[in-house]
Amino acid sequence: MNYAIIGTGAIGGFYGGMLAKSGKEVHFLFHSDYEQALGNGLQVDSVSGDFCIRPVKAYKSTADMPPCDLILVCLKTINNRLLADMLRPILKPDSTVVLVQNGLDIERQAAEVLPASVGVAGGMAFICSNKIGPAHIRHLDYGRLTVGAYRGGSQALEQLCSDLHAAGVEALLAPDLHEARWKKLVWNIPYNGMTVILDSTTEQLMRQADSRALIYDIMLEVLRGAEADGVHIPTAFADEMMRSTDQMRPYKPSMRLDFDHHRPMEIEAIYSNPLAAARSHGVDLPKIAVMEQQLKYIQQTYLP
Amino acid sequence: MNYAIIGTGAIGGFYGGMLAKSGKEVHFLFHSDYEQALGNGLQVDSVSGDFCIRPVKAYKSTADMPPCDLILVCLKTINNRLLADMLRPILKPDSTVVLVQNGLDIERQAAEVLPASVGVAGGMAFICSNKIGPAHIRHLDYGRLTVGAYRGGSQALEQLCSDLHAAGVEALLAPDLHEARWKKLVWNIPYNGMTVILDSTTEQLMRQADSRALIYDIMLEVLRGAEADGVHIPTAFADEMMRSTDQMRPYKPSMRLDFDHHRPMEIEAIYSNPLAAARSHGVDLPKIAVMEQQLKYIQQTYLP
Repeated sequence: MNYAIIGTGAIGGFYGGMLAKSGKEVHFLFHSDYEQALGNGLQVDSVSGDFCIRPVKAYKSTADMPPCDLILVCLKTINNRLLADMLRPILKPDSTVVLVQNGLDIERQAAEVLPASVGVAGGMAFICSNKIGPAHIRHLDYGRLTVGAYRGGSQALEQLCSDLHAAGVEALLAPDLHEARWKKLVWNIPYNGMTVILDSTTEQLMRQADSRALIYDIMLEVLRGAEADGVHIPTAFADEMMRSTDQMRPYKPSMRLDFDHHRPMEIEAIYSNPLAAARSHGVDLPKIAVMEQQLKYIQQTYLP
Repeated sequence: MNYAIIGTGAIGGFYGGMLAKSGKEVHFLFHSDYEQALGNGLQVDSVSGDFCIRPVKAYKSTADMPPCDLILVCLKTINNRLLADMLRPILKPDSTVVLVQNGLDIERQAAEVLPASVGVAGGMAFICSNKIGPAHIRHLDYGRLTVGAYRGGSQALEQLCSDLHAAGVEALLAPDLHEARWKKLVWNIPYNGMTVILDSTTEQLMRQADSRALIYDIMLEVLRGAEADGVHIPTAFADEMMRSTDQMRPYKPSMRLDFDHHRPMEIEAIYSNPLAAARSHGVDLPKIAVMEQQLKYIQQTYLP
């Protein structure tokens, strides 16, 4: 099974790099870092050991890439409308596309535009990892990739998990992708937006009593949204997210990094889609709705 | 009837200045601006005409002031725990204390610590006015003072309104102080906090579609809180607040100015007290609760 990494940043660079290091055939799509990757390879500084993939199978366009069995899409959801055109050159009839992205209802939108024979799945990276320079990734903490089938592709996902394990990466095949997506939102919804709105890190939010209570209240609202959308997540799960964030190093979530680097934020995938899902079942999530509106204001006022 | 202005800032300086200009006996308590006031008087630059009260009856301490019939307290609510001690030297048995302050439940707290014979009332300033230098006020827009009795003092309030009219200031004696306080909150709750949280002016919030919708949603939540607390305010009142803010010049509300000048913000009076009032009737106001928590985080993180 050969791999394509569509978007070699903090996430794609780490998982693709680990697979390549373990001997798998991995083709990496780069954007602005292409020249650097060609010359110096893909550098990964990881808590579990630094390494460099050199030479790296680097490409500037999917048009130059071979067809691949397993395609990990590690782009921001903002670009998903370009996905069908971008993936066309590398699709086999039985390829599986795994959307390693944030938010809800990502797979449905992709499945609508990809050929019906192509498998569609979701992936959730539980990882603290940043791109710190061209083709240069720093992996700070954690690393589990949870994947779940949306349409077909279950054999390919099992192979992916097995290859990741062999590469030293924790991988989990979730029986229920929709549940896994909501569970990830229990963390993503409070921290991603609030670190932008309150100009803070996770650690600052956890240290101050009011922001800590606010984070927890918002987690509980995510649980209410999930419940309305058919996914029961016990309160203990929110408690566990609080605990594990307490143990994390001070961290800027992806949305905060997007804001800091003047890139568009994934408001639709992380906020608007979950709000719409809950609303379609007659449930309002007022605190999350405040965050969505504040973030949209910030996006339109400060970002291109 | 003689007047004391306790706190000669943007509000006290304007109303006291207008009363003094019309010939009333007005005693002004200054803090850091005392020397400037003694030397150069109280300067008011107003849309309805600039003037200077010079000499001005300026004091550094209430211990030096004569007893007064009508006492306008124009300090931040943050200092209200000092009120009983501060006012003791200037109280007559039948003085009336008007708390020209923001928020809810201000009068109850003051009435508990002031002598029972002293009238207690509330005042709400509908005015755009800033202190732009020592003993120097700029009045930008509007100017109505709405007052309402909390305990006794109704004759003094009538006299106050009549004196203000004679001085060219719109004044209104509200039949229901509690209702008037909630009505003022329909404006104060959304704009005061959101200009701080989103680092903006009223005009920026009104121009962008999402923040505009957010402001309106929060106004509707204030109406729900008022309703729970026994005050019916029709939706049309929120519409009217939106319209009048659209017509306002770009403005930084008092909380935003407090933040900009590193002064404590009136979170308790404007947010915590209304939230507690609604909660005492079993009603949650989740969007306003988010604002309260965000503001407390900001206060503790950035202010002394």
